[in-house]
Amino acid sequence: KQIILLPGDGIGREIMDSAKVVLQAVAHEYGHSFTFHQHAIGGDAIDQYGTPLPEETIQACQNADAILLGAVGGPKWDQVAVHLRPERGLLGIRKTLGLFANLRPVKGFQALLHASPIKEEIIQDSDILIIRELTGGLYFGQPSERRDNGNAVVDTLSYTREEMERIIDKAFESARIRNKHLTSVDKANVLESSRLWREVVEEKAKDYPDVTVEHMLVDACAMKLITNPSAFDVIVTENLFGDILSDEASVLTGSLGMLPSASVRSDGVGLYEPVHGTAPDIAGKGIANPLGMILSAALMLRFSFGMEEEASEIEKAVNECLEQGYHTADLRIKDGIQVGTKEMTDKVLENLT
Amino acid sequence: KQIILLPGDGIGREIMDSAKVVLQAVAHEYGHSFTFHQHAIGGDAIDQYGTPLPEETIQACQNADAILLGAVGGPKWDQVAVHLRPERGLLGIRKTLGLFANLRPVKGFQALLHASPIKEEIIQDSDILIIRELTGGLYFGQPSERRDNGNAVVDTLSYTREEMERIIDKAFESARIRNKHLTSVDKANVLESSRLWREVVEEKAKDYPDVTVEHMLVDACAMKLITNPSAFDVIVTENLFGDILSDEASVLTGSLGMLPSASVRSDGVGLYEPVHGTAPDIAGKGIANPLGMILSAALMLRFSFGMEEEASEIEKAVNECLEQGYHTADLRIKDGIQVGTKEMTDKVLENLT
Ligand SMILES: CC(C)[C@H](C(=O)O)[C@@H](O)C(=O)O
Ligand SMILES: CC(C)[C@H](C(=O)O)[C@@H](O)C(=O)O
Repeated sequence: KQIILLPGDGIGREIMDSAKVVLQAVAHEYGHSFTFHQHAIGGDAIDQYGTPLPEETIQACQNADAILLGAVGGPKWDQVAVHLRPERGLLGIRKTLGLFANLRPVKGFQALLHASPIKEEIIQDSDILIIRELTGGLYFGQPSERRDNGNAVVDTLSYTREEMERIIDKAFESARIRNKHLTSVDKANVLESSRLWREVVEEKAKDYPDVTVEHMLVDACAMKLITNPSAFDVIVTENLFGDILSDEASVLTGSLGMLPSASVRSDGVGLYEPVHGTAPDIAGKGIANPLGMILSAALMLRFSFGMEEEASEIEKAVNECLEQGYHTADLRIKDGIQVGTKEMTDKVLENLT
Repeated sequence: KQIILLPGDGIGREIMDSAKVVLQAVAHEYGHSFTFHQHAIGGDAIDQYGTPLPEETIQACQNADAILLGAVGGPKWDQVAVHLRPERGLLGIRKTLGLFANLRPVKGFQALLHASPIKEEIIQDSDILIIRELTGGLYFGQPSERRDNGNAVVDTLSYTREEMERIIDKAFESARIRNKHLTSVDKANVLESSRLWREVVEEKAKDYPDVTVEHMLVDACAMKLITNPSAFDVIVTENLFGDILSDEASVLTGSLGMLPSASVRSDGVGLYEPVHGTAPDIAGKGIANPLGMILSAALMLRFSFGMEEEASEIEKAVNECLEQGYHTADLRIKDGIQVGTKEMTDKVLENLT
């Protein structure tokens, strides 16, 4: 398997090393052969090539079986022109590779739940998979421009029925192998695109009679994620709603630094990245939490390579570390032992077999 | 002062009666003269006139000094064609009257904080005013239509610089008389409209040197509202972001049924409504919580009539009731006394003078 590593900026490089050694250990144990090639993206690529997504990186990714991404961005590039910003690299790679389905599991770790801003009794049984459409909507719709001598502006929320169908299919398939409940989120009382979305969901629902479907308005969903998160199983929504709701959901468990994400397309190729950012303030200090990146590598094994057993083993090892009290500086565990990036990675390795 | 009452649907009628008697008591105490005229909107108007916003209602509102709205919508009208739905009445009245600024205060009541899904230490000092642009953006932008034989769809996020300027001015003015901190929320790393928004905020900031401004991405704001709500003072954002974030924020205090909202324009005319919905399941039972409606009437006195003292008196009376342990069925107070809509209203009246 050809795996492309895009460490990106800030703590990206440190945590990528952790993911790599964990993958190497798993490959050794199960007799897999993974090859790794590292390329530049984001601010790192701006510094080296003058563009956040160099042609060479695109080509490498196009030939890859899967991609691991650290994180992109940082204050260093804040003054760069918009179309050359580090985030453009991320948007560009999603779009170029057609990674239309962003999967964001939100599930707390028992040892960390006490750190949640939400009361423990409300959050403890939550296990949500948010599926966000990633290559359409307001992110890429045209026109997106100033008008009337700069005195007006438009952006366009644009979708084809086909783009809706494939993400909604993905959501039904995911619900089918989980708890068979799908919440489709839209703003159908205002947006025409949401009304088409609802129609497509209704049509597709006929193909998945074993899955129950409910429609929810995005504002209502933003409330219910806080008041009753355990009522959700799979949530599916368009790009921008998904951006907001998945980030909202990510803080519920009290361990943002732990959460992985997957951006995939139908043939299984995918890009995997932790939900947290580049954390420029702690970059290079060896104290970053590598677990979100390691868990992203586990998602890669599951979703892109179909290696369920290997993925579960990594996830169990991570959980073991927390149960043993090991945590990085961003986390708190009662009577726990604070460790750095490297020690945390070593603990995961120890718990692997 | 001419006040138009639009009770609307569900519990709207019951709680409107409560607001009216409280206003009458205040008018009596302070020697004001308020006249009330009631008109139909939403499902109620659909049943009576076949349209959610009858011409007669529009005209009455156009001549009013202020408008009180209960709530609109309910399952009864779910099958009605989209452009005739109860919510259209609400969107129509906002747009027709040019009520561009939606003000949503989010502040908990000490007696109710324990009911928050958020840990008390996180939420207790929060006092946020969310200012949402209400007549632009994706809600009204054109085109909003199906294309390519129904196989594609677009909605348009459209703003003029002027529409941005007036809401941003409103936000700076509000911050100035509060804690002088403004958070402007956008998605400037993706949307051209957000980049213009940021420019306008930067320009306006020069006119309000006493107010500190920060820019925040909408996804980051959705997180921070949960992890650190007390870091906010005034938040200003465009229509749809404001819809999502203000509803998200409304559940933080644990007392959605208590929250008022104001939708105003520059000359002081405004529409005031509670944040909660029509609650069709308890409509007509005399158990609805009238406090959100009563507090909306207080906002009307403050924002539309400049009657600060009168507004504060109502707010204090409501707080007194809670401190005395009185609560409706939607709330819980330890060792409290559960009462119905009418008794709750009577308790507010008792606490008034
Ligand atoms: C960096 C930004 C453009 C991006 C997005 O909005 O998609 C990020 O917030 C994310 O969710 O991955
Ligand atoms: C009913 C609906 C159209 C409305 C909106 O989205 O503005 C509501 O959610 C609100 O916030 O008042």
